[in-house]
Amino acid sequence: MKTTLISLLSATFLLANAAFAGSDVARPNILLILTDDQGYADVGFNNQQTDVVTPNLDALANNGLVFNSAYVAHPFCGPSRAALMTGRYPHKIGSQFNLPVGGSSTGIDVNETFISKTLQQAGYFTGAIGKWHLGELEPYHPNNRGFDEFYGFLGGGHDYFPSQYRPKYEHLKKQGITRMYDYITPLQHNGKEVRESEYITDALSREAIRFINTAADNKQQPFFLYLAYNAPHVPLEATEEDLARFAHIKDKKRRTYAAMVYAVDRGIENITKALKDSGQFDNTLIVFLSDNGGNTSKGGVNTPLREGKGSAHEGGHRVPMMVHWPDGLARSGNYAYPVSALDLYPTFANLAGAELNPGKILDGVDIWPHLMANTSARAGQSLFMMRHRTAAHDVSVRRDQWKAVRTKKTGKWQLFDIENDMSEKHDLSAKHPRILEDMIRDIAHWSWSNVPPRWFHIHEEGDLWRQHDMPRFSETFTNKQ
Amino acid sequence: MKTTLISLLSATFLLANAAFAGSDVARPNILLILTDDQGYADVGFNNQQTDVVTPNLDALANNGLVFNSAYVAHPFCGPSRAALMTGRYPHKIGSQFNLPVGGSSTGIDVNETFISKTLQQAGYFTGAIGKWHLGELEPYHPNNRGFDEFYGFLGGGHDYFPSQYRPKYEHLKKQGITRMYDYITPLQHNGKEVRESEYITDALSREAIRFINTAADNKQQPFFLYLAYNAPHVPLEATEEDLARFAHIKDKKRRTYAAMVYAVDRGIENITKALKDSGQFDNTLIVFLSDNGGNTSKGGVNTPLREGKGSAHEGGHRVPMMVHWPDGLARSGNYAYPVSALDLYPTFANLAGAELNPGKILDGVDIWPHLMANTSARAGQSLFMMRHRTAAHDVSVRRDQWKAVRTKKTGKWQLFDIENDMSEKHDLSAKHPRILEDMIRDIAHWSWSNVPPRWFHIHEEGDLWRQHDMPRFSETFTNKQ
Amino acid sequence: MKTTLISLLSATFLLANAAFAGSDVARPNILLILTDDQGYADVGFNNQQTDVVTPNLDALANNGLVFNSAYVAHPFCGPSRAALMTGRYPHKIGSQFNLPVGGSSTGIDVNETFISKTLQQAGYFTGAIGKWHLGELEPYHPNNRGFDEFYGFLGGGHDYFPSQYRPKYEHLKKQGITRMYDYITPLQHNGKEVRESEYITDALSREAIRFINTAADNKQQPFFLYLAYNAPHVPLEATEEDLARFAHIKDKKRRTYAAMVYAVDRGIENITKALKDSGQFDNTLIVFLSDNGGNTSKGGVNTPLREGKGSAHEGGHRVPMMVHWPDGLARSGNYAYPVSALDLYPTFANLAGAELNPGKILDGVDIWPHLMANTSARAGQSLFMMRHRTAAHDVSVRRDQWKAVRTKKTGKWQLFDIENDMSEKHDLSAKHPRILEDMIRDIAHWSWSNVPPRWFHIHEEGDLWRQHDMPRFSETFTNKQ
Repeated sequence: MKTTLISLLSATFLLANAAFAGSDVARPNILLILTDDQGYADVGFNNQQTDVVTPNLDALANNGLVFNSAYVAHPFCGPSRAALMTGRYPHKIGSQFNLPVGGSSTGIDVNETFISKTLQQAGYFTGAIGKWHLGELEPYHPNNRGFDEFYGFLGGGHDYFPSQYRPKYEHLKKQGITRMYDYITPLQHNGKEVRESEYITDALSREAIRFINTAADNKQQPFFLYLAYNAPHVPLEATEEDLARFAHIKDKKRRTYAAMVYAVDRGIENITKALKDSGQFDNTLIVFLSDNGGNTSKGGVNTPLREGKGSAHEGGHRVPMMVHWPDGLARSGNYAYPVSALDLYPTFANLAGAELNPGKILDGVDIWPHLMANTSARAGQSLFMMRHRTAAHDVSVRRDQWKAVRTKKTGKWQLFDIENDMSEKHDLSAKHPRILEDMIRDIAHWSWSNVPPRWFHIHEEGDLWRQHDMPRFSETFTNKQ
Repeated sequence: MKTTLISLLSATFLLANAAFAGSDVARPNILLILTDDQGYADVGFNNQQTDVVTPNLDALANNGLVFNSAYVAHPFCGPSRAALMTGRYPHKIGSQFNLPVGGSSTGIDVNETFISKTLQQAGYFTGAIGKWHLGELEPYHPNNRGFDEFYGFLGGGHDYFPSQYRPKYEHLKKQGITRMYDYITPLQHNGKEVRESEYITDALSREAIRFINTAADNKQQPFFLYLAYNAPHVPLEATEEDLARFAHIKDKKRRTYAAMVYAVDRGIENITKALKDSGQFDNTLIVFLSDNGGNTSKGGVNTPLREGKGSAHEGGHRVPMMVHWPDGLARSGNYAYPVSALDLYPTFANLAGAELNPGKILDGVDIWPHLMANTSARAGQSLFMMRHRTAAHDVSVRRDQWKAVRTKKTGKWQLFDIENDMSEKHDLSAKHPRILEDMIRDIAHWSWSNVPPRWFHIHEEGDLWRQHDMPRFSETFTNKQ
Repeated sequence: MKTTLISLLSATFLLANAAFAGSDVARPNILLILTDDQGYADVGFNNQQTDVVTPNLDALANNGLVFNSAYVAHPFCGPSRAALMTGRYPHKIGSQFNLPVGGSSTGIDVNETFISKTLQQAGYFTGAIGKWHLGELEPYHPNNRGFDEFYGFLGGGHDYFPSQYRPKYEHLKKQGITRMYDYITPLQHNGKEVRESEYITDALSREAIRFINTAADNKQQPFFLYLAYNAPHVPLEATEEDLARFAHIKDKKRRTYAAMVYAVDRGIENITKALKDSGQFDNTLIVFLSDNGGNTSKGGVNTPLREGKGSAHEGGHRVPMMVHWPDGLARSGNYAYPVSALDLYPTFANLAGAELNPGKILDGVDIWPHLMANTSARAGQSLFMMRHRTAAHDVSVRRDQWKAVRTKKTGKWQLFDIENDMSEKHDLSAKHPRILEDMIRDIAHWSWSNVPPRWFHIHEEGDLWRQHDMPRFSETFTNKQ
């Protein structure tokens, strides 16, 4: 009888693990490395011959798969990260804008189960290190969204040198000021303030190694580590050593940016070593990508893509990306079909044999079988991008070789054969009106299940939204000059 | 001990079936036949002497109950059907508009349990045949809303001749067009495309008979069949045979319309026969009604009611309706008190001994005891109708013998003694201001729990809604000239 | 085995009672007395030497704790009561406005568990007597929100003399009018109409005593009684006997008001006696407070506070309050630190050893340990007040000794040292701009999780809200002249 009872109660758990239980293959560790505002051209493995140097990333890429057409769900970091964690377009969960400045009393809808929670429920040991930017209050804290471990900061970015930001923080605190610029507030470990002393990129790499070593001692559980560097996001701050390596770069911004990327790459060298030393390297799936395009006014380069961070053109949301997994990846080289950061949730869940919570909706697809077979994961299906603006929005649709795009600035729809015109130079809308019309209908159709933003970056933005009776989709989805 | 455990787990299920379990009467099969845009005068049993002929419907009506004052919840088909399936005013669940054209990524709120689900949970074998129009994506599909079987089309209508619409579909598909007019896309059976070859009305009747025969083989379960003909909705297309029968009608639209209604009636003849042949006729509750008033510019006639489809006057939302059930109906003739399509959910659930899901709200009442006793099911209580328009709305309130109505066009409230002035000719608002005022307060009160539309028919409509700061109820509920 | 099974099923219940189960102290009865629009100066125990007389309240206060700085969450009664019952700022649950006039089809969000429900689930015998004003339909009825017993009226107020209001009600009813002014409709007991004959204040006191005596017979359960007098809210109606006692007051409004407050105090005398007679006095926690500031145009006095009911200044939302509990209160005298009506929910729940429902959010804190230790319950943390107006709102922030306030009328932020300037006379905003700025950021931050109002008091108000593109927080939170 006792057995019966226990079986009954354990059914859900057993079910959750059923997918891998019968399999011979051990479930992989998953290391998801996200950088902030790193441009398409700002990794060595994309072969754009810029002055940025990423030898360790390149080494992984050489033995892994490089994604030529990887998209994030939004060209800004808050919505892009929300999509990564929830597997949903930010427009479906009200997180189309960065969270309000100055800390906020809201966060990503608690009804959306994060990938970390799904993996945690499936038995993974989970950690988040670095930038969070998905909500600061208790219900939104990483430890309440599926992460056993959190080391980092909750806001949208951070200054890099504790010796410089700490005194500013202490000064304001002494005056009784509680609402200060969060780039200078202390880092935390599982909700407890820590006094960090290292250059932040190095500190995050250090903590990632600590996590990896802890995970190695824990033979029962595979790990999921979400390592979210704030580099090379502003403020542009690099160590003297790293800057010295790029002394030949004239432009100071670019020189610092290159040094910051290099610091990340140095971290990846050490992380790789820690994985190897602990015997976990071969069965760790490493995924590397940037959260959005490079900010071209802050040192980033997206060559040969058009425009950068924030844009509906490729430079805004097509990002450097690669995966590496000796035990699991059946081939190396390139994968040229479009993939989305939205696809990571279902892909990770399936690789981990994790069951989704009832009712969980996912906007992406499991790309793994397609990576192996080198087939398109969404033949005939569209990927959407929408950045809200007052009046008409900036939008794009990627379907097979086509990209349709409309920005508020141009006020008209354009169509590019993005496979053959990566830089979006030749508008084919007049040549293929039927295809363009079909793609516009695709995004108009998609938009019907969008929900209003649950917050705006600043109150003024929300007030403008209402004053202009947004979202006014009819203007965006009309194809008239 | 084992028994204890099982009892505990089964409690909910047992409870759900308790109502009928102790009863001597077998639960009825339920056959709900809905037509599309069929006018009040366009059935024989309403005795309006039009050129429409419905001998088989009339035969059922003669042995059943005819409803003189049956209302649907909205004068358009999407909201009307949403009300039928959910038992809720569409204004309470955000479905006040037809779903967006061109297919849509939304549908009736998944938190609303359909009557089909309630009956399915109570042990019924359930089927939907014909037009759906309640959502096309997976969560909104009939098979996920309580229907074991679905044969038909998901959109708001369909062309009638496969030989004509199929080539158009094939042509567009060949060009890679995915978002085409859904009146020409293939029908489906439980999500799988089928190649239909019959005139659609005949195809739907055929499938209804197939369902009825399958149900007859299944002695364990009573059935619920929702047979939703798209006839006589446009496009006006009839078979040569049926047209020949109405060659005497000069007006081509009306001739075709009459032929289309006749095709439905032919189907009902065969369905009746199938019920009889399979021994199910006596214990099948047949309910027939139209989803809204006849479209007077497309062949429909609502005599003696004022106006037609879309109107707040009687022609818009007062519909032909009858019930037939040899084993269960204790009387035949007429039922003159007001009833609503909203009442079918609680009535069916009670007849089926079905338990409602916790928290399920219903806006209608179980009319069965009142039909038997020939008493009013809502003495002193109001039925509401509201069609959203930009600025003020078209609204009506029916309470006992009174009908209050206000349209955007007239801009003023009128009051009719609808029992004695079925055609809404004599405005009594000046004579009974107190009663009118009370009814306006009734609808103003009702409106406080309305929710904003979850979609509009086209994006422009939503943009106008916001630009005009809708719903602006204060204008609608003010009784000033 | 049976034990195992039962243990399993009872776990939640046992957990809920764990806090008190191991304790030696019996859980207290809780008697929450709320008056309506009673001013800060209109109790004897606040020592403002007005012409109002409250000897019985004062006697309790003398042996209890008097709160110098007690705030309600809103300066109007509907939102204030919603906060009291839910423990949430009304702005977080859409109840920022009084419910619609003339009865309404909506009410406080059913997902919010009331304190009464939490206590009921923890084993308390619960009663509500008097004014409800939190929703009239079945899901919102007191009996569905955790009250075993309800005697009173569902609307926002009531006439006081049955002999006067009853004939008006009968007259309208005879005409078939169903939507009448609810101040004249009959009272009810658990949903059933009763024919009350006493002056309403006396009737409510009588029913409170009946409840207390019933509770005394029930040794198994402690009680929670929510006694919500509508006095001294308008209409200003008092008995001849009470009026005679205040014949010396010239102003008729004030004379009647004083008599109405005196009637409440007479009731408290009898209630106190009933508690003593039934042996429950020593272990009953009595909490007395007003729902908002006194209405200065209707007889209320808030001296020395600035303005009255409806205001963001202290007179609007700082209220008379005291607690009394012989068995549990370790000290008497004054408590000068700020507390909020929001704090009662967590405080009561903890004293009762009650478990919160999963996911229940509370905006207040358990003040009990701080009352005992005479320490601040929210050092460095803010209390917020926001009354929506068209265009900018009236708002205030209380933090430690500071109060920041901005009204639509002045259009500028002011800062007061409220500990030393209770009457808000000396604006220190120019002297402490940094502190003011920090407090504005506090409320701007708080507002991000506000939700739109779920209703307005009248439809016009909602229409204006939309026409003016509210909430337009950027205007309110800007500190520019």
